[in-house]
This record gives sequence, structure tokens and C-alpha cells, in this order.
Amino acid sequence: MEAKLEVGILGFGTVGSGVIHILEEHAEKISQMTGYQVSVKTVLVRDLEKNRRYETKGFSLTTEPSDILDDPAISVVVEVMGSIEPAREYVLQALKAGKHVVTANKDLIALHGDELIAVAQANQCDLFYEASVAGGIPILRTIVNGLAADKIQKVMGIVNGTTNFMLTKMKTEKRDYEDVLKEAQDLGFAESDPTNDVDGIDAARKMVILTRLAFGMNVDLADVDTVGIRGIAPRDMEVAEQLKYVIKLVGTAEEKNGSVAVSVGPVLLPKYHPMAGVNNENNAVFVTGAAAGETMYYGPGAGELPTATSVVSDIITVAKNSKLGTNGNAFNSYKHDTKQTVPEEIFSKYYLRIVMDDKTGTFLKLTQIFAEAGVGFDKILQEPLDEFTATVVVVTHVTSKAQLEQAIEKVKLEPQMQVEAKYQVVEG
Amino acid sequence: MEAKLEVGILGFGTVGSGVIHILEEHAEKISQMTGYQVSVKTVLVRDLEKNRRYETKGFSLTTEPSDILDDPAISVVVEVMGSIEPAREYVLQALKAGKHVVTANKDLIALHGDELIAVAQANQCDLFYEASVAGGIPILRTIVNGLAADKIQKVMGIVNGTTNFMLTKMKTEKRDYEDVLKEAQDLGFAESDPTNDVDGIDAARKMVILTRLAFGMNVDLADVDTVGIRGIAPRDMEVAEQLKYVIKLVGTAEEKNGSVAVSVGPVLLPKYHPMAGVNNENNAVFVTGAAAGETMYYGPGAGELPTATSVVSDIITVAKNSKLGTNGNAFNSYKHDTKQTVPEEIFSKYYLRIVMDDKTGTFLKLTQIFAEAGVGFDKILQEPLDEFTATVVVVTHVTSKAQLEQAIEKVKLEPQMQVEAKYQVVEG
Repeated sequence: MEAKLEVGILGFGTVGSGVIHILEEHAEKISQMTGYQVSVKTVLVRDLEKNRRYETKGFSLTTEPSDILDDPAISVVVEVMGSIEPAREYVLQALKAGKHVVTANKDLIALHGDELIAVAQANQCDLFYEASVAGGIPILRTIVNGLAADKIQKVMGIVNGTTNFMLTKMKTEKRDYEDVLKEAQDLGFAESDPTNDVDGIDAARKMVILTRLAFGMNVDLADVDTVGIRGIAPRDMEVAEQLKYVIKLVGTAEEKNGSVAVSVGPVLLPKYHPMAGVNNENNAVFVTGAAAGETMYYGPGAGELPTATSVVSDIITVAKNSKLGTNGNAFNSYKHDTKQTVPEEIFSKYYLRIVMDDKTGTFLKLTQIFAEAGVGFDKILQEPLDEFTATVVVVTHVTSKAQLEQAIEKVKLEPQMQVEAKYQVVEG
Repeated sequence: MEAKLEVGILGFGTVGSGVIHILEEHAEKISQMTGYQVSVKTVLVRDLEKNRRYETKGFSLTTEPSDILDDPAISVVVEVMGSIEPAREYVLQALKAGKHVVTANKDLIALHGDELIAVAQANQCDLFYEASVAGGIPILRTIVNGLAADKIQKVMGIVNGTTNFMLTKMKTEKRDYEDVLKEAQDLGFAESDPTNDVDGIDAARKMVILTRLAFGMNVDLADVDTVGIRGIAPRDMEVAEQLKYVIKLVGTAEEKNGSVAVSVGPVLLPKYHPMAGVNNENNAVFVTGAAAGETMYYGPGAGELPTATSVVSDIITVAKNSKLGTNGNAFNSYKHDTKQTVPEEIFSKYYLRIVMDDKTGTFLKLTQIFAEAGVGFDKILQEPLDEFTATVVVVTHVTSKAQLEQAIEKVKLEPQMQVEAKYQVVEG
């Protein structure tokens, strides 16, 4: 008789239902691939009475977490509740009870991944979270598999669907931030408090996860230089288009000489860059490897079935590992001491939008400040804003972050000028 | 002591050298991931005297295939010779001797994959060929892994780097076919006889491989409806741009109700389609899954190190399978009877460029022919070519291939009009 692998699911929302649906529909293929008959045994719900989307055939519902966490027959726990607590507590209990865990919870993994991974390894359990970054794109496993035969140098990602949807609308329909935010909220893409999305926090969490996998380093969320999209003005969109760029909210993690720099912020991408064409709520992760070169992985960033597909892929890997006797390697066991790249070693071109008094000498003053910091200008666009002020947009030459910050600190001392936008510019 | 896995390599060109280089550089990581010490034992070369790029430390060179194929210590054979014979013969011998085979040879797999896969399975050997399609992009394994939790409906690919380079140049530099072909030849992207690339044969071979993996069906090369890029005129490029499309050479394999349609040809992609931004010699494969939705995998289509990286990934999988005792599943064992979709069931919009006598009544005749076949026009652009002839470009409504062919057969009977281009149009 074929071995059984029984699954408990914490949470019966759309993703949980999708997982059940896919496991049923692909039962035969999964058994062929893994040698296990994988089935759902128990699902944790908040309310037993509520009508459920799928018939609860072959499994039972419970409101008692211990019905899953203490059931010795269940060897895989799927966490699709979201939020930190009690998800964290349940995952820890499951791992300590020797159960493998698959989660779609990016907040949990970004904030407590280090702790959970350690507990998983100590208990020789798998802990997988493919669905936590870029929902339907198998990016985490691709990075981990790719790593075996290559050295990753840089990971760039459009990893927040809400802001990408908003930026796409701002660009193609020439609308402003407030207007498209309202539409995103009406469509249910953005929360009524959109902070996590629009301020880049969600993207920063995903970059923490990607950095851990690609470079084996644990970066604190606080150490991710994070800027959101609130400050992007229609004027920025126009100028970017004139200069043949597209503005996207991009997370970047780059390793250099054993240290890593992680940031999230609006970035000007050349319009022929593969990421420039990633529109609407889609996600993409662009990976630079020493041997494989530049590859990109594109797809839906969220959604019930794409996310559930990734969860099921993780369950299949748990099943394979169980056959192989290789459980407990988490996604990878590749680990380095975390070292942050100093600002003197982070290089980029920058886009700056500066508002200044429209008086003779102000622009001269500005150029002097940048020249003294060693920051050269590649492109300059100036135009009057009203009778008294003018907007200057400059694109700098490649400069270190330290030099740029030095110049900007000096600009702050000048009451007649103000830096209103500072975005990285990627060259093709 | 750690188990050893010894590799023999047939061919010592750039890819073979790359494989040796990567296996050496990543030896420790590979041993951590697989539990095997993977090393190259013997390399087949044509000429022992020729200077080699890498020092031949730790392995020996031979001109005698049997030194690899008959060596019981060698359990994995890497075939990077190219061409059909003697590669096919050597691969068969290796499989029959119980050795696993990794090959980068798309011609071999497209034309003889069915035979080789059967022999591999009969001998419980792995036969992997990730590098044969889209060199550096891990597309085959992604499809196979993804299949376990999803049903693939359609695969579209820009899978020939040479023609994509040429089309990019034709578009961005407004040059004609002959001119960019010469540049591609000068740069070494195109052969002196460019037939395989420009007539779509290379792309068709890759689509045969992708179809086998995604749908478990063996399609004959002769059954792939293949059109190349020779006929693309500067006028087509211009009109496509006016209509906000980009012309790419795209391979398509689509499954519907258990039958599959495979084609290669110039396709008009909306300029905001993710594949429209795939430029130069890059490749991309765009997959539509029932659950995961639309995902795209982008990267270098060829090149020494990207290709070698894929070969090494395959070797790592062989090593894992050897530990797992799951060798012999080839890439997948998913197989269906091959059924081709009838032309009545293949639907698309089409772009047609028709040259006709500039006489009253000719255009009326044309519209009558199409109306009788049930093919409606979505867009029409007409302009005089010279004193006596005019070019008409039409984009049809969605129509079946059968209806379109019927109309075109009738046009062929009219001496005063001629269809010069017929490309599929993809809607966003």
C-alpha cells in the first residue's frame, strides 16, 4: 500500500480552499511524483457554522488548533492564516512536534524567519514559504536551485502588486497618486490603511526574505533603506517618460565583496529593460548570476490559485524530501555573517527633483554644492513652477550613496532649495 | 567517506569547459546539496594535442569514446558535441550501459527524444536536457515541477536568439532583413547558411521539446506549422508600430480538449505584453497555467556559461535522484496520445499584408472574399505602392485558421491580389 502523507491546514480562506482543491485535483500526479498519497486531514477554522466554499469531504473542520498541532497522524502543517500571532506560535508548536511547515505568510517569515528556520533545523523539519514572495512565481526555489551551480550577485524585484498597479495607472492614464490609490482601494488591491504597501514596507519584507535565500544573510527590516511611492508626482512620471524611463517601485539586494546592500524605492528603469514592461498587479524578480547572467521571473504577485499553487509545490517538495530523508534543510542552509555595504561602496545614478527660488545664482549655488561633493550631472531639465520658484530635475552621473547624501545634507542647509524626490536610475 | 559520482564529458568546446569549471568552483556546495563528490573523470576530444582552455587537472583526455562509454566508474555522461551523429549513437550506448545522460543538444532531443527517452526509462537512467531550450533559463524543470500542482494550457516562447536579435535591430534601427542578417553573421550569431534560424526550424525543434514536457505529446517537426522571418518587410515593422504592436518570432503550443496545436511564426504582440520587451539575443518562455495564471521566464538563450550552468543543474538532479533512488523518470513520465488540433478549432486574429492592383473594384473583391469565408476586418490600412499597385494591411477579427486559409486560397485565384504576409496577432 502506498504511504500516506496527511496535511493539516491552519486557515480556510481563499488560499486554504485553493490548496484543498488543487491537492484533490492533482492527487494522482502528486502520488506518481512523490510516492505519497497526500491528503488533507483537518482544517482549522474560526467558525464551524460558516458556509464553506468547497465541500468538506474527506477531512474535518475544527476550531481547536491542538486537533492539528497535536495529531501524530498529521506530518505537514500549512499555515495560511496571515498576521504574526497566533500564526508564529502555531508554527513553532508544529515544528517542535516534528511537523513540516508550509506557509504563505511573508510577514511571519520576514520578521521571524531566523527563529523559525533555526527551530525547523533543530527538529529536522522542512519549513517552506514559496508563496510568501511573488505568489504564483516559483522564485524562491529557482534561486535556491540556481545557487547550486551559480553565484548570485544581485536580485531586483517588483514584489508589491498594489503599488505596481498604481504606478501603471499613474503612467498610462496620467493620473495622480491620490486618484489611483482610491481606485486600488475600491478594487480591493489596497487596504483602507495603505501604509504597508505604499510606503514600501511590504516590499521591504519580501526583500528580507529574498536576501536571506540569495546571499544567506539575515538583514533587519530596519536596515533596508525603504522609500515608498507617496512622493511620486505626475511631473516625475512625465520627466521619466521624456527621458525614456519608467518609474517602478523596485527592491534591490546586491552583494559585493561579502557585504550586502538592500533597498526599496522608486527606480527609473530604461523603458527597454525587461522589468519596465511589468505592469498592473504583476510581480517580477530579476536575478543576476555570475554564470547564468540576467534572468527574470514574471507572474501574478498574489491571487488565490497562484498562491495555492505555490503552497502545493512546497507540499510536494516536503513529500519528496520525506522519501529522500533530506527533510530539515529549510529552503537552504547557505548562511553567512550579515555584513552591510557601506554607503561609500554603493554606486548608482540618481534622479533628483529640486524646487528652488527662481533667482539668479540659486542654480549656480546648487551646482557648486554637488560639484564639491564630487557628484556630476548627466542631464538637467529646468522650468519655472510659478513666478517665484522653479523645478530642476537632474540625473547624476554614477556616484556613491555617501557622496550623494553629503550633497543633499548641504542642500538642506540652503533655505532657497529643497530636494523633493531622489530615486535611483538603472542603466540598461 | 563521501560517495563519488564520476562524470564523462563528450566534447570539450566552450560548454564542456564551462561545465568542468563550474563543477570545480561549486564542488563544496554541490556535495552539501547532494551528498556526492561530483567530479569529471574523462573528456572526449577530437585532438589530444590542441591547447585546452582549462588545465586538465584531475581528469584525462581521450579520443576514444569507449574510454567513457565502457568505463564502469563513470555514471553520468554529458553530451555537448552537438549534431545528430555520432551524438545519438554515443547517448544510446551510454544509456544501455546504465549511465545517466545530460545533453545540451536540442536537435538530438527534438528529433530523437522519443527513442532516447524510451531507452533511458528501459534502463532506469536519467536523461536530462535543460540546456537544450533557452540555454540559461531553467524552463524545462520549472514546467515539470509546476505541472505537479497545475495544468498548463499554453506555452509561448521566443526561443531563437538569432532571429530575436535581428528583429530587435530591424525595429529599433529601422533596418531591413538583409542588412541585419549580415550583422548577425558578422557577430557570429548567425551561421553563413542561416536557414535553421531564420526559417524558424531551430525554434520549431525547441517547441517540439516544450510540447513534450508541457503536454506529454510527441509532435513531429513536420507537424509544427513553421514560418520564419525572411518575409518580414520594413513596412510590416512600421505598421505594427503604428498599431502599437511589436513583431517577434514566437513559438506557440496550446492544448485544447486533449489536442494540441504547435506553430512557429512572426506574431504581433501588444507593445505592453511582457514578451514584447524581450530584446536582442534574449529568450523568454511565457506559460499559461490553469491555476498559476500567466508566468514568464526570461534570460540568455545561449552562451557558454549560461548553458553550462543548466548542464550542471541537470547533473545535480541526477545526483539527487541517485540518492533518492528515483532515477529513470526522464524529465517527466507524463504522456498522452498525440492529437493535433484541427484548423477549425485554432482561433486567432491575423495580420495580413496584401498587394493589389490599384483599380476600382479590387478592394471590394477582396472584402467579398473574406466576408464569404466569414472573416471580418478589425483594422484596415491602405496606401498606394506605386502608380499601379497598392498595399493593404488588415487585421482580422478572431477567426479560425480554417476560415482564414479558405479566404487565402480564394485570394490566390485572383491574379490582381497577392497575400505577402500572414502573421498571428496576440491580444493583451
